[in-house]
Amino acid sequence: MKDFTVSAGLAGIRALLDTLPEADEAAAAQWAARDPQLTKPGGALGRLEEISRHLSAWQGRHPPRLDCVRARVYAGNHGVAELGVSAFPAAVTVQMVANFRHGGAAINQLCKTFGIELAVEALELDRPTNDFTQGPAMSEADCVAAFATGMNAAESGVDLLVIGEMGIGNTTSAAALCHGLYGQLAADWTGRGTGVDDEHLRIKTEVVAKGVAVNASRDPLEILRRLGGRELAAMAGAILGARLARIPVILDGYVCTAAAAVLEAARPGALDHCLVGHASVEPGHRRLLDHLGKRPLLEMDMRLGEASGAALAVGIVRAALACHTGMATFAEAGVSDKE
Amino acid sequence: MKDFTVSAGLAGIRALLDTLPEADEAAAAQWAARDPQLTKPGGALGRLEEISRHLSAWQGRHPPRLDCVRARVYAGNHGVAELGVSAFPAAVTVQMVANFRHGGAAINQLCKTFGIELAVEALELDRPTNDFTQGPAMSEADCVAAFATGMNAAESGVDLLVIGEMGIGNTTSAAALCHGLYGQLAADWTGRGTGVDDEHLRIKTEVVAKGVAVNASRDPLEILRRLGGRELAAMAGAILGARLARIPVILDGYVCTAAAAVLEAARPGALDHCLVGHASVEPGHRRLLDHLGKRPLLEMDMRLGEASGAALAVGIVRAALACHTGMATFAEAGVSDKE
Repeated sequence: MKDFTVSAGLAGIRALLDTLPEADEAAAAQWAARDPQLTKPGGALGRLEEISRHLSAWQGRHPPRLDCVRARVYAGNHGVAELGVSAFPAAVTVQMVANFRHGGAAINQLCKTFGIELAVEALELDRPTNDFTQGPAMSEADCVAAFATGMNAAESGVDLLVIGEMGIGNTTSAAALCHGLYGQLAADWTGRGTGVDDEHLRIKTEVVAKGVAVNASRDPLEILRRLGGRELAAMAGAILGARLARIPVILDGYVCTAAAAVLEAARPGALDHCLVGHASVEPGHRRLLDHLGKRPLLEMDMRLGEASGAALAVGIVRAALACHTGMATFAEAGVSDKE
Repeated sequence: MKDFTVSAGLAGIRALLDTLPEADEAAAAQWAARDPQLTKPGGALGRLEEISRHLSAWQGRHPPRLDCVRARVYAGNHGVAELGVSAFPAAVTVQMVANFRHGGAAINQLCKTFGIELAVEALELDRPTNDFTQGPAMSEADCVAAFATGMNAAESGVDLLVIGEMGIGNTTSAAALCHGLYGQLAADWTGRGTGVDDEHLRIKTEVVAKGVAVNASRDPLEILRRLGGRELAAMAGAILGARLARIPVILDGYVCTAAAAVLEAARPGALDHCLVGHASVEPGHRRLLDHLGKRPLLEMDMRLGEASGAALAVGIVRAALACHTGMATFAEAGVSDKE
């Protein structure tokens, strides 16, 4: 999928969403033939069984592999960051990208721990999106360019893709996206992000409400353009690109899942290849997961972004695969099956 | 703690429970001095922060280490297994011990995945405990011998201990222990274990109720002797031995936590050095964790035992340590702190 061109526009993305491959039932059947033979009571590994089945079905092979796990972290800057919606200055986005590149951030430690190759993409950090309380955050060209950056990054040989972001102000963008997609109250979707106080939470909620009022649309991709940001568009693109390339995905927290939700709203089922790594303590994330019908793998009270919750879940996914492929069968081990 | 002798009896265990070391506040203070300097919003790593603090406080050093993570799986056989309380024949206990030794079980794959050294101890499998519906499961000598096996295994140089079990019939023993310790109804504590049907669940519940009626006691260690089993006594001993040796512990599922609960009932605070790896789908486990005030690290719908849920949580613990020790500080990375 390295051939998506920006000139195709949002219409080009819509067209691709009608071409999604589905899970490979033959690979899933091979999984289902092996699992009951393994030396454990049926179902006793719970969600670990669901995970290895998911890998098989979405990689389209049995046994599935995790030889190459790739994390992609997209960074962007936001016009709304100037409105007092974050506890940190906007300069932190570029500083944290440098920190990622020098190996000093949480995501670097998590990638080392779980054998993940990290790629960081900074998206025009010196050109923040427009303040969406005044009009659309992005032009169509800007939005599609960022989307294409994500989509065209899908690499053959990647067995699992972990998606995340960095961008001061981007929980405001995520809240506005969700409010735009699902309605409810702006306050339902707006949380403290990096840790704003009550007064700044009030300002942030007003920014979200005003953004949606100014940019109302019923088209999910238009909502992404008007209320999103470059890193959100890139994540949505990466998730779509992975689907087209048959790469299962682990989503991270609120901002990542909000970007993903655009795809699901545009084409129900578009996130069927995605697991959700964790539930963030950002309250909108739980609400969003309920809308998507997704149960997170982990609940660690994290709220960092950077793909950190998704990367943490890679340990669980590796364990699931190790059990499915490495365990002895009842016959091999000479263990009596259920009476 | 290799010098606990069986002749000291249950009274000797009671005496040791009055000598428990507490968390090291100096090491915890060193943790608390470093954590706010790391390049993340305060608290953004959620429970990962709690975990690295726990390791520091209970290892009594900063930074803590995970160079040697040891899993100990104890196996025992139960007289009540003959009463139709399990979906599997009692012969499976010894067969699964062989499977552990040949590397074919789930716990072997999990230990390989997370760098855990596995030790399996089979406790007189050819001599099941007595059927506790007819009287005490164990003599004091048998109970204390198993307890001592666990307690004397505490090794210097172990940085984290993972505890689990194998024993056909032992969720019945766990349910009886909990019913004996906390009251409520036998049905509140009795679940399907390896997967018994409705009729066998009814039988199992009756066995639990009768066991408690026959063996009533207000003394937690007596309850362990009368309703427990060798692997439960050994796990309780291992948990106590680890506390005395300043080794933090990860508990596994229902049977492991029931054994641990005996210590907490005998001496409140006795499990303060323990994390709980996961919540089993065995319904008594959640109820038990509520009694203990412990929140599990994972909820993966597992119900296997073998220390599998605790071993899975080691990945999370390794990630927590990697973040605390490996992340750059704001000063090192040149990242602006909160405004």
